[in-house]
Amino acid sequence: MSDTATTAGVGNGSADSNAGPAYTALRQELRETEALSSIGAVIGWDQETYMPPAATPLRAEQAALISQLVHDRRTSSRFAELLAAAEEEVAAGGDEEALANLREVRRDFETSTKFPASLVRDFAEVTTMAQFEWRGARERNDFAAFAPWLNRVIELNRRKAEALRTEETPGLYDALLDSYEPGMRTAEIIRIFTDLRGRLIPLISAIADSGRLPDNRIQKIRIPIADQAAFNRRVAERIGFDFQAGRLDTSTHPFCQGVGPGDTRLTTRYREDSFFDALSSTLHESGHGIYEQRLPKSERMGEPLSEAASLGIHESQSRLWENFVGRSRAFWGWALPEAKTVFSPSLNDVTVDEVYGTLNRVEPNLIRVDSDEATYNLHIMLRFDLERALLEGDLAVADLPTAWNDRIRSDLGIEVPDNRMGCLQDVHWSMGAIGYFPTYTLGNLYAAQLWEALASQIPTLDEQLQAGDFEELRGWLTQKIHRWGRRFTAPELCERATGKPLTADPFMAYLEGKLRPLYGL
Amino acid sequence: MSDTATTAGVGNGSADSNAGPAYTALRQELRETEALSSIGAVIGWDQETYMPPAATPLRAEQAALISQLVHDRRTSSRFAELLAAAEEEVAAGGDEEALANLREVRRDFETSTKFPASLVRDFAEVTTMAQFEWRGARERNDFAAFAPWLNRVIELNRRKAEALRTEETPGLYDALLDSYEPGMRTAEIIRIFTDLRGRLIPLISAIADSGRLPDNRIQKIRIPIADQAAFNRRVAERIGFDFQAGRLDTSTHPFCQGVGPGDTRLTTRYREDSFFDALSSTLHESGHGIYEQRLPKSERMGEPLSEAASLGIHESQSRLWENFVGRSRAFWGWALPEAKTVFSPSLNDVTVDEVYGTLNRVEPNLIRVDSDEATYNLHIMLRFDLERALLEGDLAVADLPTAWNDRIRSDLGIEVPDNRMGCLQDVHWSMGAIGYFPTYTLGNLYAAQLWEALASQIPTLDEQLQAGDFEELRGWLTQKIHRWGRRFTAPELCERATGKPLTADPFMAYLEGKLRPLYGL
Repeated sequence: MSDTATTAGVGNGSADSNAGPAYTALRQELRETEALSSIGAVIGWDQETYMPPAATPLRAEQAALISQLVHDRRTSSRFAELLAAAEEEVAAGGDEEALANLREVRRDFETSTKFPASLVRDFAEVTTMAQFEWRGARERNDFAAFAPWLNRVIELNRRKAEALRTEETPGLYDALLDSYEPGMRTAEIIRIFTDLRGRLIPLISAIADSGRLPDNRIQKIRIPIADQAAFNRRVAERIGFDFQAGRLDTSTHPFCQGVGPGDTRLTTRYREDSFFDALSSTLHESGHGIYEQRLPKSERMGEPLSEAASLGIHESQSRLWENFVGRSRAFWGWALPEAKTVFSPSLNDVTVDEVYGTLNRVEPNLIRVDSDEATYNLHIMLRFDLERALLEGDLAVADLPTAWNDRIRSDLGIEVPDNRMGCLQDVHWSMGAIGYFPTYTLGNLYAAQLWEALASQIPTLDEQLQAGDFEELRGWLTQKIHRWGRRFTAPELCERATGKPLTADPFMAYLEGKLRPLYGL
Repeated sequence: MSDTATTAGVGNGSADSNAGPAYTALRQELRETEALSSIGAVIGWDQETYMPPAATPLRAEQAALISQLVHDRRTSSRFAELLAAAEEEVAAGGDEEALANLREVRRDFETSTKFPASLVRDFAEVTTMAQFEWRGARERNDFAAFAPWLNRVIELNRRKAEALRTEETPGLYDALLDSYEPGMRTAEIIRIFTDLRGRLIPLISAIADSGRLPDNRIQKIRIPIADQAAFNRRVAERIGFDFQAGRLDTSTHPFCQGVGPGDTRLTTRYREDSFFDALSSTLHESGHGIYEQRLPKSERMGEPLSEAASLGIHESQSRLWENFVGRSRAFWGWALPEAKTVFSPSLNDVTVDEVYGTLNRVEPNLIRVDSDEATYNLHIMLRFDLERALLEGDLAVADLPTAWNDRIRSDLGIEVPDNRMGCLQDVHWSMGAIGYFPTYTLGNLYAAQLWEALASQIPTLDEQLQAGDFEELRGWLTQKIHRWGRRFTAPELCERATGKPLTADPFMAYLEGKLRPLYGL
């Protein structure tokens, strides 16, 4: 039986077949609002891929309008009544899934109603323009052109945080963080990051002192972009991304847009001399895409039970495919012969050991997305600290480039030559996302803990990867993570899947287990 | 001064600077509704170009939702009040442009309010699915799979016609036709088509009897699609399509989607052995695109004065570039050397006379869009007659293939081998468009009459085309047609631009003037 066939039936059993009319009416309303919201996802994707530049002002207007309409529906008195009626009805019945669904709908409703409509609209309008300005500023290395937009984004985030904060999330940053990683707190992140930093820094130092550095001549091999694109598509398909229900395009910053049932869109980026980087991005976005495609969206479109548990969990799926699979000897035991055939003779003299060494080079890099698995997390800590300082008013936007460059120098020992390679490199702030970056490192930690568990439960995992057989791995992830949507919180999901709460131990064990032998430590 | 710079200032002078608050409020409402409607245009374009197949049901839901929201706004009591207030205010002031704008807003409002909301929604939902089913049915040559969808489309069109018909448009078909070509009547089309048919048939016969047929070996020259795409883009840009504010992609059936200010999207289709056909499609869609880009949309988004006068006028713009320019010796005097350079050595031994002969071959063709300028209009007459019969219930959908094939045999003397080459070839019916086809032949007639006028006013036209200089031609069209939007009706525009009402005379004079020498008649 193909596991695609399994997907449709996976998840929530009878899909609330016992539910009464009030709950059914609420679900219908959620579905319709999601249809509207998913239109916003399509035009958001279009903006990053195919939209002509002169359409930017119109797109800002369109995006603002959709956001406004969605927000209006999510906060309407009609919706409040539907929700209250459904809660009353289900409380009497007591179906566990319906209760979980309603708990999350209630959470979303409380959040939405705290958001003034004017802020929703301003957010959509400003960030559409800010993304456009960011793209130009990055191209021209012109931080001054982006600075006023970043100022507006921060101001909007302050308004957002003021609107959202509660007794549990009293700090401005707490309120923002909670919107991406429900239940996570700034203090907890600081605790985890401090622990992680304390163990990463000595490892990175030891590697630097080892005097060893795997060769990277293979990262200079030139392969035509059209050929790379065909191969990336093939790998994405092989690991389980369904192209009948999705696409793979190119954009400045790779992303995954889960539009809705039957429509999940990935992007990556190619350079002739960066075959391994492009594939890495594709594996990453495919990990997100496989999660999106295996959430029970057809049955439960618009309902929390068909949505990702958190950004950290989402990121764990992308990191797992990008790093735990994509930087392993076993995976390249399958992928390298495939690539050799397609790109012959470009990779003819390349060995699996050589690829493994290159992909696990630990070397400070100015660019976050090009960084190795060890130093990557220092990039996240930098952004986490600087965005908190910007938000709290402890750092002026004008001083950001200096603060950025100083921190890169002290953490990584390298100089930032220009802002393109520094504080203009990421799209996130221009999209309005403050409080989002830490979820990347949480994703690494979740991925490591999931990997540890699944590797112990799938004894032939290495042989399967070596054979290009990803079905059991994918099935495990669907079983433990994908199918549940927001039925459980991220910490609960983690504990159910791995038997213990999240710690940095599996990540450090994985990293040390891989890097110590490679660097003779 | 570049004529792009002119565009911004072109058109409607002070853009109603004297207008009062009620008129201003109405314009703001029109603009916002158009922003919503333009989102529908983006997702419609996406559906034909990049959408994954499994997204079809979701897309049907999205399209229906946007149509519904737009319809609700256009028919709301709030809108009725805004319109009435603006009419009262402007009637007192008396600005001519505002009066014309309001006349057309009123016309649209009356039409919209006749459309029940349920019909709008059904239309969007059924046609989204019907287009999907049509694509599959055409691929598999499976008319039976499409037949139930065509039945639903016809039934919906009956409901539409019943809803729209008035004293001036008493017939079902009249009501549909008037929605595409305001003011045109079925009886008038029959009169024009009968006249045209009576003059075309002898010309086509004489050509067939002449024993001459220009060689078409150049239509078999193979040119890689990527190279063709680059050349098509270059030509579209040269004739005046602005790629900062638009795109050129590929789709099964080429089209132009004017999304809104700064966003006009064309598609064409390529085959390695059909360079001339692809360029012809590109010129056609670019003609539509240039019209869309030069309507005063930035200043008047959503207002009738920024919209195309009629489908017939729209088609006149595409036909003018496709045929009057694109099948002329003068144009190829410029384009052929350009193409030779790019495609060297593929076209090295091709001459302008050879291209001219090939592009003006008159030969019955099963496919409408591949037909020559003479027989093309017989294809339109066939569709016009059959869709009226379907609508009136005089022809059952099941009998369509036979009726189609019989008519092709009697009109063109050729046999239809399968429905892919017959009644499944066009996208229009699957899109819900009944009453649309005749506007194609009206477009040919308008184009001929405009061409006659502009050729007499631009004495060096041929030299300009020969030099690849399209500025004065494009400027004339903008001055006479593009900038006016719906300020004047199609017949008024025609008379203002050419000094006389529409007749078939200029078209027949153009055709005979070109074909008689070529075929030694």
